Amino acid sequence: MEQAIGVIDSGVGGLTVAYELMRQLPKEKLIYLGDTARCPYGPRSEEEVKKFTWELVDFLLEKNIKMLVVACNTATAFTLQELQEKLDIPVIGVIQPGARAAIKFTRNNNIGVIGTEGTIRSEAYTKALESIHSSIKVNALACPLFVPMVEQGILTGKKAQEVVESSLSPLMEGEMDTLILGCTHYPLLKQTIQNVMGEQVTVISSSEETARETSTILDVHKIIKTGDVIPVHEFYTTGELEIFIEIAKSIFKDPYLQMVTIKKAQLGQTQKT
Amino acid sequence: MEQAIGVIDSGVGGLTVAYELMRQLPKEKLIYLGDTARCPYGPRSEEEVKKFTWELVDFLLEKNIKMLVVACNTATAFTLQELQEKLDIPVIGVIQPGARAAIKFTRNNNIGVIGTEGTIRSEAYTKALESIHSSIKVNALACPLFVPMVEQGILTGKKAQEVVESSLSPLMEGEMDTLILGCTHYPLLKQTIQNVMGEQVTVISSSEETARETSTILDVHKIIKTGDVIPVHEFYTTGELEIFIEIAKSIFKDPYLQMVTIKKAQLGQTQKT
Repeated sequence: MEQAIGVIDSGVGGLTVAYELMRQLPKEKLIYLGDTARCPYGPRSEEEVKKFTWELVDFLLEKNIKMLVVACNTATAFTLQELQEKLDIPVIGVIQPGARAAIKFTRNNNIGVIGTEGTIRSEAYTKALESIHSSIKVNALACPLFVPMVEQGILTGKKAQEVVESSLSPLMEGEMDTLILGCTHYPLLKQTIQNVMGEQVTVISSSEETARETSTILDVHKIIKTGDVIPVHEFYTTGELEIFIEIAKSIFKDPYLQMVTIKKAQLGQTQKT
Repeated sequence: MEQAIGVIDSGVGGLTVAYELMRQLPKEKLIYLGDTARCPYGPRSEEEVKKFTWELVDFLLEKNIKMLVVACNTATAFTLQELQEKLDIPVIGVIQPGARAAIKFTRNNNIGVIGTEGTIRSEAYTKALESIHSSIKVNALACPLFVPMVEQGILTGKKAQEVVESSLSPLMEGEMDTLILGCTHYPLLKQTIQNVMGEQVTVISSSEETARETSTILDVHKIIKTGDVIPVHEFYTTGELEIFIEIAKSIFKDPYLQMVTIKKAQLGQTQKT
């Protein structure tokens, strides 16, 4: 099926999901929309997040997408169920894939989750884990310093190591064997987080897992792309084009970077005309 | 949804998939049917495998299952597509989940696959991998000694190590970073295979991955079980009850073993009466 997979995010965090989609599903075309102008969604009310998310979804529906990936934890927590009920295309969020992967990996049913304050406060991961497996123990921790650090490009090295070590210290005493990176920015810190947690802990990237499950869902719905035409992906931002391009360059490596066009999005245009 | 997940296999190999389903989806009830009397399916013709598989499926459909897991590589290779087209419940096989997991894990696009001679000859894993990702290099190898060794209970120790080492030696010169265990018996040898391949190779259990994707599909189709009633699983064999019980005991540990009833199945009974 030639139609694209739509990906929405509050800004640039979802680019790690897009990168994994390109890597794991190289035949599929993506149309990504990041609402950088109104990022972050974390501190906003449920009503506002729903309104903004539907604006992003409407923009992508106009482009005839075959599936929707909600690559933002806050938007997933507040809108996934509604989107799944109201849209007639498959919709996946970033929370459930990370939860299911963690249940697969854990051997002692002790799972840690780190994320933004909003995501941890929403208890979305805890609820997702417990809905599948009642005897999972969840240790959830907000790491408010990680997103600003990633956005400054501090991913490895002494400074990153120090911040990650001190942030994760409340988790070090537990018996968890699996840690979910419950924020789409965190995969960029995966190596540093793995170093700090030690090899006995499996670190789960919800971006990798969401791409993996997108692959499953395309197969189950029989809408996977066949043929070998190399796709040209369309990326849109509601915010500053130059900043978005710089961050995209830092996340996508060749050959993926060559396959992406980045433009400014005008939301609600179709309604106005 | 209170209905059970149906699991079919040519014999006892699928019990590793059943174990993973119990572990990862502890609220779900399973009805398992192993065609031990006519095992193995590997050397049989496509026509015969299809006929036998439909007999297993009909037995489970009578029990009103909500989803079907084909926990046998041969049956998956020959019948998955037909089952998905003809049944109005979701159907998953054991090949695609392992392939998708390998694509997620690999970093150099070099993937190894081991399985029975029939599975390797069918090239089912190679086709599944290449349909998603054209530039994956696949190194496939039949390991005919592994199933008899597992069925004799030789899983670790010097003898197991020697057989695994000599069987896998053709793979040791390649650059693969990911190895798919493309046979449902092989997860019982996972530790020995991991020791032989070394830590730099990710070893993928298609049983673990099939259970993980079953979880995804239950969620997507909104047929996941809610509530906390502990299920009693029904297991059936077409062959010798005592042998089946012995093997089930060696695969399931407590508390899972306490949750299983095992009975002899009479195929085609409903048609006869």
